[in-house]
Amino acid sequence: MEQALRALWSARSIAVVGATERTGALGRLPVEFLQRYGYQGAIYPVRPDGAEVLGLRSFPRVQDCPVPDGPVELAMLMVGAERVPTAVEDCVAAGVSTAVICASGFAETGASGIERQQQIVQTARAGGLRLVGPNTIGSVGVRAGQVTSFSPLFSGVETQLVDGSLGFVTQSGALGYGAVSLAFERGLGLGWVVNTGNEADVGALEVMAALADEPDCRGLLAYVESLDDIDRLRTVAASGLPVAVLKAGRSAAGQRAAASHTGALAAGDRVVDAALRQHGIVRADDVDDLLDIGDAFDQPRRPSGPRVAVVTTSGGSGILAADAVEAHGLELATLCEPTSLALAEIVPAYGSTANPVDVTATVMSNPELFDQALDLLVADPEVDIVIACFCVLTGRDVDGVVTSLARVAQGSGKPVLVARTGAEHLSPTAGSRLRAAGLPVYPTPARAVRAAAALHQVTGAGRRVALGADRGHGHGMVPHASMSERELKDLLAAAGLPVPTGQLVAEQEQAGAGVAQVGGRAVMKAVVPGMTHKTEAGGVALDVTVDTAEQTWKRLAGLGGQVLVEEMVDGGVEALVGVAPSPLGPVVTVGPGGVLTELFDDVALRVLPVDAEAVEAMIDETRLGAMLAGPRGAPSADRDALVRVVVEVAHLVVDWPDGFELDLNPVRVLPVGAGARILDAVYVAPNEDD
Amino acid sequence: MEQALRALWSARSIAVVGATERTGALGRLPVEFLQRYGYQGAIYPVRPDGAEVLGLRSFPRVQDCPVPDGPVELAMLMVGAERVPTAVEDCVAAGVSTAVICASGFAETGASGIERQQQIVQTARAGGLRLVGPNTIGSVGVRAGQVTSFSPLFSGVETQLVDGSLGFVTQSGALGYGAVSLAFERGLGLGWVVNTGNEADVGALEVMAALADEPDCRGLLAYVESLDDIDRLRTVAASGLPVAVLKAGRSAAGQRAAASHTGALAAGDRVVDAALRQHGIVRADDVDDLLDIGDAFDQPRRPSGPRVAVVTTSGGSGILAADAVEAHGLELATLCEPTSLALAEIVPAYGSTANPVDVTATVMSNPELFDQALDLLVADPEVDIVIACFCVLTGRDVDGVVTSLARVAQGSGKPVLVARTGAEHLSPTAGSRLRAAGLPVYPTPARAVRAAAALHQVTGAGRRVALGADRGHGHGMVPHASMSERELKDLLAAAGLPVPTGQLVAEQEQAGAGVAQVGGRAVMKAVVPGMTHKTEAGGVALDVTVDTAEQTWKRLAGLGGQVLVEEMVDGGVEALVGVAPSPLGPVVTVGPGGVLTELFDDVALRVLPVDAEAVEAMIDETRLGAMLAGPRGAPSADRDALVRVVVEVAHLVVDWPDGFELDLNPVRVLPVGAGARILDAVYVAPNEDD
Repeated sequence: MEQALRALWSARSIAVVGATERTGALGRLPVEFLQRYGYQGAIYPVRPDGAEVLGLRSFPRVQDCPVPDGPVELAMLMVGAERVPTAVEDCVAAGVSTAVICASGFAETGASGIERQQQIVQTARAGGLRLVGPNTIGSVGVRAGQVTSFSPLFSGVETQLVDGSLGFVTQSGALGYGAVSLAFERGLGLGWVVNTGNEADVGALEVMAALADEPDCRGLLAYVESLDDIDRLRTVAASGLPVAVLKAGRSAAGQRAAASHTGALAAGDRVVDAALRQHGIVRADDVDDLLDIGDAFDQPRRPSGPRVAVVTTSGGSGILAADAVEAHGLELATLCEPTSLALAEIVPAYGSTANPVDVTATVMSNPELFDQALDLLVADPEVDIVIACFCVLTGRDVDGVVTSLARVAQGSGKPVLVARTGAEHLSPTAGSRLRAAGLPVYPTPARAVRAAAALHQVTGAGRRVALGADRGHGHGMVPHASMSERELKDLLAAAGLPVPTGQLVAEQEQAGAGVAQVGGRAVMKAVVPGMTHKTEAGGVALDVTVDTAEQTWKRLAGLGGQVLVEEMVDGGVEALVGVAPSPLGPVVTVGPGGVLTELFDDVALRVLPVDAEAVEAMIDETRLGAMLAGPRGAPSADRDALVRVVVEVAHLVVDWPDGFELDLNPVRVLPVGAGARILDAVYVAPNEDD
Repeated sequence: MEQALRALWSARSIAVVGATERTGALGRLPVEFLQRYGYQGAIYPVRPDGAEVLGLRSFPRVQDCPVPDGPVELAMLMVGAERVPTAVEDCVAAGVSTAVICASGFAETGASGIERQQQIVQTARAGGLRLVGPNTIGSVGVRAGQVTSFSPLFSGVETQLVDGSLGFVTQSGALGYGAVSLAFERGLGLGWVVNTGNEADVGALEVMAALADEPDCRGLLAYVESLDDIDRLRTVAASGLPVAVLKAGRSAAGQRAAASHTGALAAGDRVVDAALRQHGIVRADDVDDLLDIGDAFDQPRRPSGPRVAVVTTSGGSGILAADAVEAHGLELATLCEPTSLALAEIVPAYGSTANPVDVTATVMSNPELFDQALDLLVADPEVDIVIACFCVLTGRDVDGVVTSLARVAQGSGKPVLVARTGAEHLSPTAGSRLRAAGLPVYPTPARAVRAAAALHQVTGAGRRVALGADRGHGHGMVPHASMSERELKDLLAAAGLPVPTGQLVAEQEQAGAGVAQVGGRAVMKAVVPGMTHKTEAGGVALDVTVDTAEQTWKRLAGLGGQVLVEEMVDGGVEALVGVAPSPLGPVVTVGPGGVLTELFDDVALRVLPVDAEAVEAMIDETRLGAMLAGPRGAPSADRDALVRVVVEVAHLVVDWPDGFELDLNPVRVLPVGAGARILDAVYVAPNEDD
């Protein structure tokens, strides 16, 4: 299967179906580009009339192509949507590995297009053919000169492929090849480019997983609009490669309506954020951010920690860098005293020997002094990353700067990134020389820091990937849609989860006895089918005693349902624990509960499975961590009990049906040693609307 | 005074003190640059030996320069720190308007430098001379070719000044001129550039205010590390010009760096955010963001609302633009039905007639169809701003695109911004042609949207500046440092603020009577000097009745102080109201109170004065708005009462001494009609530490 995808960048034979010589026709371009960029494999134009195309003999059908050593590996279908089904059948008949379908007019155009798309997928799957697209601009294998694409980028008079160690996968064609053009323009080499289009069969994550198997691939960049394959996401993460993803569709328009709080909180973009972070993948904010991060991946050194030394000749750049270090979760290194003392011997008084280190223009212009200063910084054991910031860098200074920086980077193995906040023309070769020396260059200090932070996050010491967690087995206890709150709590209790004692009380005269049975202080709740917000509806009575039991029972029964009498649980901290569906599978949610849930929108998410360590991290991502620790001298709450609840819930739901929502809110976390109690529990069965 | 500052960009006569012909010497550069860039005024090199400098006669002292029509307007002091005091005295003697001091070695180097800086300021002020710097790289008046700067930028072989309608003021020299070089490189014209350096006398805000008086100035950009002149900030805001500020020193780390760099303490970052927003000034995130916003200011059209239509040929660009529209507080326009219907006649099925509108490459490549589509969009009354997104824009398509976009922009008066996510070399002239047509160009959709949002925020309908609020008069009631909580509350009550009734009870036997006097339910508080966190110390007892009064009194008195008995106030919502000092004057703070204050860090700030409208906005900036409205069916709280409290506090503190802090927390906001009560009040006198 992966072998089939390799044809997207290193096919030995390529058929171009719908090839033509006609200028301006799209069917001409792949043939022209394969020739122009030096592809050495076999090219077979396919067209019914057998006419020659750009000096190549053509063949009426794919199965007619005379490949010496087996079938055509890659077929590029440059025909309109109406001719695609036949072309796909031909590919199957010919034993082609992979067909790239460029035509529009499929799922993106509505019902009839969706049907057409489903049909070709059926044909392909039955015949062992992999499909890329439809609605794709194609792929590029840079090293092989395999431009199986019709992007106008490759028509550019000045366009040159820039080989490199990164793979780039994009769901969008135009934007993707725009980004490729910007990467090449800045000198960022890409070894592999694949546009997956409508993803009728092959998706971006599958291509990324295949690229991760390429021995020369050192990192992956991707532009995606949907992410829905958790297993392939895990495969990509398990490769250990640094990966950055620009995920579009953040806005509310894409989010679905949810029946529960958890469902609403765990929707859309937040799930993407959580899933990527969980899998050690950095999320890019924009196209230039994606390429900035790519530049950092592309240099060979990896940080062993988050501590940044900033070296500059501009106080302003130093401050902007320091701001960015804090904003992006890195740390400004505290230099060792010997380093500062030695720097003070070199740096003039109007500079700064504290980090950010302002060596001043005098030192920078003196290669020997600049070398000394850099040696001191990079040798400091408190420093993991060096960011050098320059402004108006002119020709005069460039030689020394490049030589010095390259030397310390290579010698130390610590990554060195450069910010150059000044016009290119002041030293036209500086950028390419720095890059060639393994020193990525950014236009501002903040962008250099951001790229360093991304590098830290996904490589070396900063990489946090929880792949080992076992999803485990459920208990075989699955709720049903019409379960009452108490039935659900009994199910939770049977699974070992802590719920208040209690029972339904059917008769007014038994109300007092019911209250006595739960300890003499009770909560009474009206259990009315369809009443989702009990408190607002007056369906909850707190602190009911034996004396007030009958009167309260009567009022609640009057709301039209049954009456539940439960143990009254006071004090502690209210938490929310929930599970909601997502395109990447069930997502668990933890945060402050009760009224705070709605007010402060403060939740941590994880795609399941989670283990206790992940839950601990989730608690600390929200204010729940501080609440449990006991702010303002309040006693600490039983955090361990909450962790157990979340881990146990994660196990319990393993065999629940796809698409359910579970809302435990509040879970009351009592003082240390006293455990937790799930005071309210709501289950929403799949496909059930609010 | 402003006339003196005009010399920074349009002096009729300039003395360069310390001028020399020697190659590589900084004293050569201003003379060289004034000649190179065509300055037409009089240039007087000043040097002791009277030797000729670059063909110009020199003079031993500033007062020797033979200006025909009065004294030298601008003196550029290119001498070392040790020679500056004499040069400043000479400038005073000569009646120079403004001296620019380029030397380092003043406040940025420590105690002796600070003293040296204070001395020259004294000399200058006594003599009516304005000082710019020290530690500045100088200023530029682009139209006049007045390059009174020694930045290496102006040595660049390819450097050309690009005239324009924006002024740029920077506290940092190297970074500032780096940014200028990037502005010129992208074709963003700047009419005026001033680097204020250490700001011993003239500060950035004063220069901005002076630039705002220039008739041709259409907008201001600034890089600053400190902001401390609220009156000049108001002057700049009152000019009505669009202003964008990149304020460095956001982080705790960055603030440290600022202190060592310019000798100015950075203001707390939240105060800066609040003060800028209050004054209709947009805060830029980075150097490229500042220039992006500058490009939007520079085009002549202003949006009359926040509704954006996105037109593109790339679905991916459309989604990224839509994401950014939401992130930056704009709105995606909902097109009128006739617009959508008419678009459907033009746009193929695989495009999109809903916003973002994907016209497809077919339409874009057909000028007639593209024109029609644009006409429909721009004529839609629901559209205020058009953002056109392209990817691989090649030579072929550029003519049509530029012509069509320029036509609709001019015809409609609506701003049109362009995103072009593709390499420059694919159409090298596209950028400059779009810019020349008044269509700013950005590398990504998100950056175009961000610039549009900034434009909306500071111009036209989006501009919100509250300048009219009258600071008013205080009541002459000023607290003293040793005031007890109850004395402070009595002062607040005298000013018309609502506090609970109550009094100190001196004897255990009077405790019951004290409780009865406040209504039979009381709060008792230990009043112990130095006890700041009463609750944690066990110094607060709630819900004390006549029966429990004596016992409770005894316990609290045992803590070592007096006992305060106050009316018990239940229910409602807890708010925080506070006032704290800042470099821009007292700042009022509003947010959720009580335990939520520390947990959720959710506050709105305003530099005083504030009026009721501003307070309403503050409440809605925080979750307090939702809390007061009554979440989960709770009754609404008396929001009007809270607004009155904040407005009244703002009046009360007008004549309080600089540097005080006032903390009212919680202010309990009762149900509508029942008002609010200030339950706890703490006053910290100036210079008193916690």
